Amino acid sequence: MKILVLNCGSSSIKYQLFNMADQLVLAKGVVEKIGMQGSFLKHEKESGDKVKFEGEILDHKIGIEYVLGVLTSQKHGCITGLEEIEAVGHRVVHGGEAFKGSVFINDEVIQEMENCVELAPLHNPPNLKGIYAMQALLPDVPQVGVFDTAFHQTMPQHAYMYGIPYALYTKYGIRRYGFHGTSHRYVARRAAEILGLDQENSKIISCHLGNGASVCAVKNGESVDTSMGFTPVEGLIMGTRSGDIDLGAVTFIMDKEKIGTKSASTLFNKHAGMLGISGVSSDARDIEIAALENGNERAQLAMKMYDYRIRKYIGSYAAAMGGVDALVFTGGIGENADITRAGVCEDLEFLGIELDEDLNNGLRGKEQLISKEGSKVKVVVVPTNEELMIAIDTETIVKNQ
Amino acid sequence: MKILVLNCGSSSIKYQLFNMADQLVLAKGVVEKIGMQGSFLKHEKESGDKVKFEGEILDHKIGIEYVLGVLTSQKHGCITGLEEIEAVGHRVVHGGEAFKGSVFINDEVIQEMENCVELAPLHNPPNLKGIYAMQALLPDVPQVGVFDTAFHQTMPQHAYMYGIPYALYTKYGIRRYGFHGTSHRYVARRAAEILGLDQENSKIISCHLGNGASVCAVKNGESVDTSMGFTPVEGLIMGTRSGDIDLGAVTFIMDKEKIGTKSASTLFNKHAGMLGISGVSSDARDIEIAALENGNERAQLAMKMYDYRIRKYIGSYAAAMGGVDALVFTGGIGENADITRAGVCEDLEFLGIELDEDLNNGLRGKEQLISKEGSKVKVVVVPTNEELMIAIDTETIVKNQ
Repeated sequence: MKILVLNCGSSSIKYQLFNMADQLVLAKGVVEKIGMQGSFLKHEKESGDKVKFEGEILDHKIGIEYVLGVLTSQKHGCITGLEEIEAVGHRVVHGGEAFKGSVFINDEVIQEMENCVELAPLHNPPNLKGIYAMQALLPDVPQVGVFDTAFHQTMPQHAYMYGIPYALYTKYGIRRYGFHGTSHRYVARRAAEILGLDQENSKIISCHLGNGASVCAVKNGESVDTSMGFTPVEGLIMGTRSGDIDLGAVTFIMDKEKIGTKSASTLFNKHAGMLGISGVSSDARDIEIAALENGNERAQLAMKMYDYRIRKYIGSYAAAMGGVDALVFTGGIGENADITRAGVCEDLEFLGIELDEDLNNGLRGKEQLISKEGSKVKVVVVPTNEELMIAIDTETIVKNQ
Repeated sequence: MKILVLNCGSSSIKYQLFNMADQLVLAKGVVEKIGMQGSFLKHEKESGDKVKFEGEILDHKIGIEYVLGVLTSQKHGCITGLEEIEAVGHRVVHGGEAFKGSVFINDEVIQEMENCVELAPLHNPPNLKGIYAMQALLPDVPQVGVFDTAFHQTMPQHAYMYGIPYALYTKYGIRRYGFHGTSHRYVARRAAEILGLDQENSKIISCHLGNGASVCAVKNGESVDTSMGFTPVEGLIMGTRSGDIDLGAVTFIMDKEKIGTKSASTLFNKHAGMLGISGVSSDARDIEIAALENGNERAQLAMKMYDYRIRKYIGSYAAAMGGVDALVFTGGIGENADITRAGVCEDLEFLGIELDEDLNNGLRGKEQLISKEGSKVKVVVVPTNEELMIAIDTETIVKNQ
């Protein structure tokens, strides 16, 4: 079965075409600057051949037409006709409480997704645009929605509720939802496989460290807590997001700076985090260079804070699960930054976490155990693959339909 | 040396007169409803004799005149003249970054305290009123300020900074300060004494659970992290305070409810927490009855959330210190609620915490080890005594002046 995986953002579409027989990517690419000047498509075949098309890509439907065009083109394509695409899997950011797993998309499901727009006003609308465009372009091809939030729907109520008037939950759905669910699910499952753990009887802490970042406590294969909350701004310090902060500081800053909720949201989501602390960049590599090579003290502080926050979450989630068997690093930083992995694991010997420096140092982007042989808690790097997870879910659901 | 300890709130004055020779309380009491109708003074002697005076107590100075009057009265007093009061110790809520310990109060110190008013606009002004009144009434008696924040000034920068633009720290002093410092300092010290730990080489987690509540990581006698932050609303779920929450939920609620920062602050400080979740009460005893005797599900949820949040902080602070030797419970709930202590310690065996149910059950308000004999981490109840701590600091500082 050939499955097209789509991740539609506000002005971009990422895609991968999978051949599920061997789970290989036949082609992948991205459409960028949709509806703006200079929009283009970058496409790459399994062979590594790359091509870029510029054009006037006014909306998501035209963007997807470009994608379908290049996938079937004689020169750059990898399929002979659109009928080879047997299913489409969509990444959808927010599934609210309605979606506890991936779903076959029908009218009722679309209506539920529309209901979730209020919870993710920036993310769900482009996800839906992708679905509508696909329905128009390939009306007979089944579509599946895979939600960033769904994996976390197993959290117990005492983990997902906030300490606020209960009516705010019933009225507006204010609770912890969590994100990066597809990634946490994938890497926790892979980690259990690699380590020979029985996933049904395991305590895994998964650290997805990318531009956005979150930690997840996965007990017996289910998410029981996660650091992102009602929105993706809670939890870890991220590239430009503050993560956890005293709400009293938020209202204090709003008063002092005379800003409303919109500007505050921009401040804490776009100008805070590693960028705000370091003043250097939101990019972990830039900050590492500033801290280590240029002796920039604020960059050093940002790195310490970054690691410290993760370390505290690891302790916290070990407590939430009554222990921990394995610690997983993934995401751009988790997969590539040996210095961050080492910083996070510092002083965690009391939990049974012993990092093997030799295995950790220099390791970039591949599956690898990085704890010492006798380490009670296994530490492992697992490159995430949300697209594959979406493709697998899509295949399963379509076959069982 | 006889020392008067004052804790001046916005409309109340709590006082205790200590005889430092034996650290006993000669008399104590409270002035309430200052500046309101029905103001009164309640006074209690060491012997247990109690008396209540009603009167028009217009301001803190008049309130303190009442206190001095009753302390020296023939019938209800315990000293023959005001000259017996050799020093006054004041509880001051916020010492900002200026005060890293208790201080002898002089003009310069008062100026610094005034500078901190912006950080604690509700609490510092009445504290200062008490100081000014005392200067007017007993101009020759030395006064000492003991700050709720001072103990936490040892936190390392990576623990006290938030993930926000650095300029917000330099401009407004936005950082974690922490509160309940006098209590955490007292109980951590007592716990080390009781357990025979070398405080200079110990890792203690102290849980102050009262109407306000916070956890503190005390490493080698110094606070290295604490759950209250820039304000006392951060951290644990409290009687009426939310504790930790996604800032995105805060701005979302403000938008939906069309409220500004002031109303939001009231909402999260006064109507949230255990009261907001349970809908029953802010009082742990009421909630316990509702949960256990009346089967109230929201009260049960509130209790689970309360314990779970503390448990996560314990794991987090163990990670922050690289382990933990002792866990201390104090404050109204920590000292009296065996069910909460048991709930908090649940599933923490992996940390080496083993509660002794028999020792814990029914224990109320006294110093007692409550962990099992072999428990790696000692768990202990220590009734807090902030007033004594203030008196001790005051004596030390006045003697060394």
